[in-house]
Amino acid sequence: MTDMLESRLSLIVRSTEIDINGHVNNAKYLEYLEWGREDWYEHAALPYDVLLALGVVTMTVNVNLNYRKEARQNDVLTVITRPERVGNTSFTVKQSIVREQDQAQIADGTVTLVTVDAIKRTSTPVPEVLRRLFMS
Amino acid sequence: MTDMLESRLSLIVRSTEIDINGHVNNAKYLEYLEWGREDWYEHAALPYDVLLALGVVTMTVNVNLNYRKEARQNDVLTVITRPERVGNTSFTVKQSIVREQDQAQIADGTVTLVTVDAIKRTSTPVPEVLRRLFMS
Amino acid sequence: MTDMLESRLSLIVRSTEIDINGHVNNAKYLEYLEWGREDWYEHAALPYDVLLALGVVTMTVNVNLNYRKEARQNDVLTVITRPERVGNTSFTVKQSIVREQDQAQIADGTVTLVTVDAIKRTSTPVPEVLRRLFMS
Amino acid sequence: MTDMLESRLSLIVRSTEIDINGHVNNAKYLEYLEWGREDWYEHAALPYDVLLALGVVTMTVNVNLNYRKEARQNDVLTVITRPERVGNTSFTVKQSIVREQDQAQIADGTVTLVTVDAIKRTSTPVPEVLRRLFMS
Repeated sequence: MTDMLESRLSLIVRSTEIDINGHVNNAKYLEYLEWGREDWYEHAALPYDVLLALGVVTMTVNVNLNYRKEARQNDVLTVITRPERVGNTSFTVKQSIVREQDQAQIADGTVTLVTVDAIKRTSTPVPEVLRRLFMS
Repeated sequence: MTDMLESRLSLIVRSTEIDINGHVNNAKYLEYLEWGREDWYEHAALPYDVLLALGVVTMTVNVNLNYRKEARQNDVLTVITRPERVGNTSFTVKQSIVREQDQAQIADGTVTLVTVDAIKRTSTPVPEVLRRLFMS
Repeated sequence: MTDMLESRLSLIVRSTEIDINGHVNNAKYLEYLEWGREDWYEHAALPYDVLLALGVVTMTVNVNLNYRKEARQNDVLTVITRPERVGNTSFTVKQSIVREQDQAQIADGTVTLVTVDAIKRTSTPVPEVLRRLFMS
Repeated sequence: MTDMLESRLSLIVRSTEIDINGHVNNAKYLEYLEWGREDWYEHAALPYDVLLALGVVTMTVNVNLNYRKEARQNDVLTVITRPERVGNTSFTVKQSIVREQDQAQIADGTVTLVTVDAIKRTSTPVPEVLRRLFMS
């Protein structure tokens, strides 16, 4: 389990990500999670172009996200992404957001994606290079 | 049940909401859902200022969202928001996004919010004016 | 002059477009302007796909924008776009944002774009179908 | 001149900042510039809260921005902000965005702001602590 690929992306909360309540808007976290998944794909040497060359794009089909604490401007956050499970044409990653200064859990949840044929736009088996990231 | 307050917000997908895949980015849907909830609060005559005058703000604690179909620039979407259940200090609304031209279900899910004391920033009972929206 | 193509796009200011100051963030106006230009291209029957079929994409090279008044959540705004001048490989549109309820001028300015060869990514003459929009 | 306060903010272009053309959307640059100005205020020990305690907020009244080159996902950009001139109730900063890998100028321009009474929302003289940043 522990040797599964995990990625950690560090980011700083910017002014335009803050809403009228003075904290990061709930929608913005989904962007942070997407940045985290991009980082995870890159650590796996499977960025967008490599998957596309295999005829595959990934599409989000479910997000289940818990918001634990408010984050504020200039907070330094780490987005942690790790594989959870893989099926025939879908896979799930676990993601969490931790604030560096106090190690507070800001948010955590799971994101499920399907692999889709880049031309036909229909679901297609998870490529082997991606599937093996889920094997310990 | 049917006499519970439901709101329907119509929106048009704009160019800056489209990502490199040519469809609405997954994070953008959470903004659409927030716009739908604002519309729902307004239909209930409980906009931000009214709740704030009661000493309360609402905070999102969970989003569980299914993405069903891709949406594209100029699609006309309806965000439907209706009450699902209410607890002591939290409540859940059911939201779905339907494309007007073909009535396709684009996304659906639930959003859970807590009511928070606007000063102390700790959870506080759901005000009666909000709670009664969940009673049929 | 008066018979030049002008487009008017109506939009409603949404909660996630408001910043900590309680008004529309200055960056968001550039999205509004882009939506207005898309509307203008569509009224001219020259949307993205049509220009791309001519081998051309347009790229913004300058924005000069004055912010006149604050806009707030639920304000109904009209983005007015009209042609200003055309050169060999560039053109300028004049855009303004007016609030419907009081006809207040919220912002106004000019946006200059170049026409670029979609493959080579180098500037290319403004296609005749686009150029004639600037002739009265 | 050279001893005027200049700030340099480094950022990485993220996936959700890329539009259908595969490059950073023109509106996003205004967010980058705002992040740069926040960084400049902080380097001057004049963040939002300090100015607010002086009864002042700043509001953007003009942006004049040239887009020079396309930026793409994962590009590392530096936003450089430096004072240009100060008037009675307004001031102008010069900002540019440079790509670290090839030192290409991505964008440059000026942003003019007014100082506004935080309560009355009318223009008010630039506070001395802010004005002296423009003196060499």
